[in-house]
Amino acid sequence: MRIALINENSQAAKNNLIYDVLCKVANKYGDEVINFGMFSADDTHSLTYVKNGLLAGILLNTKTVDFVVTGCGTGEGAMLALNSFPNVLCGLIVDSSDAIMFREINDGNAVSLPFAKGFGWGAELQLETIFDKLLMTKGGNGYPKERAIPEKENKLILDKVKSVTTKDMLTILKEIDQDFLKSTIDYDVFKEEFFKNCKDENILNYIKSVLE
Amino acid sequence: MRIALINENSQAAKNNLIYDVLCKVANKYGDEVINFGMFSADDTHSLTYVKNGLLAGILLNTKTVDFVVTGCGTGEGAMLALNSFPNVLCGLIVDSSDAIMFREINDGNAVSLPFAKGFGWGAELQLETIFDKLLMTKGGNGYPKERAIPEKENKLILDKVKSVTTKDMLTILKEIDQDFLKSTIDYDVFKEEFFKNCKDENILNYIKSVLE
Repeated sequence: MRIALINENSQAAKNNLIYDVLCKVANKYGDEVINFGMFSADDTHSLTYVKNGLLAGILLNTKTVDFVVTGCGTGEGAMLALNSFPNVLCGLIVDSSDAIMFREINDGNAVSLPFAKGFGWGAELQLETIFDKLLMTKGGNGYPKERAIPEKENKLILDKVKSVTTKDMLTILKEIDQDFLKSTIDYDVFKEEFFKNCKDENILNYIKSVLE
Repeated sequence: MRIALINENSQAAKNNLIYDVLCKVANKYGDEVINFGMFSADDTHSLTYVKNGLLAGILLNTKTVDFVVTGCGTGEGAMLALNSFPNVLCGLIVDSSDAIMFREINDGNAVSLPFAKGFGWGAELQLETIFDKLLMTKGGNGYPKERAIPEKENKLILDKVKSVTTKDMLTILKEIDQDFLKSTIDYDVFKEEFFKNCKDENILNYIKSVLE
């Protein structure tokens, strides 16, 4: 699958490290990683955790990518921002058992990690284990396995409830502060990846008009 | 403040323990805890984590309560369900530093805890520390303190974004599966607390009509 890595400003300096570990694991499973930045602490295209949420909302709702890896200092802000959007289920993942259980029970399409809290010596080893457990499965197999049926039922009920509680992505893009939208998406990697891989023509046309 | 405790079916047996610890800490700070169940593993009014989300959405949007404490096995399911609703920002809280940082940085109105994962010997001691850190502050003071202004700004931007991405609660209540809604709210504690403390007349009237 195609995985977006999105870092916000406070932990932007760790983008290279996270990208390298994520690529190493993704290669093992035949997944592709696209780095949406921020690429460094002095990257001029600044992303806040709220902007990470908006980017993830666009990328997932248009199937530009299949999965998003994001985070912030504690992981909470990015998690809250991503979960504000339709068709995004973002777990907060602190260790490898979170990774396994989130994929098998909750079967979401995004994860937020703490890139400052608890991120000390050997953090890259912990990251590699987490990413390995995230990507080793296609998700939704249940944990424990004998609970797979009710767990899947609840996941589908949650999807249905969320389709009622949230607006559709095109409406959101039209109603959201247009300067905030433009300042989030107006940079090279986003434009390259989005216009090449977006599967939703209406959203594609709208985004095009915003960037003109 | 008024705090709702909401447990789902898989960890319902721990409701008494969690309620006792939460009350002990809440008493210290002059807060009130209302136990919305499930009260035990064989409680006949069953709540799934998705139903926890719906209950929290109603209780917070009508100011029936000010804060919600919930959870499930890992905390992820209840967190996802609560965050699907407007005006709900639910953190996933695993330890006391999560509690402090979530309150001071993210300033949310709900927390979801893992009541199975990592819930071993001394879990009630860990719970007490978490609840203490959650309730000792009114929230939003920043962590570290010198980051308070940008952190508050991002919180307000997230609130604004979420007000665009989600529908209003009354619309959600009208559009959601009505059997699912009724089966979630049709029990004594909810009806007593809601009809006594709900601050939204339109939602109150709608809920009344659903329960008739």
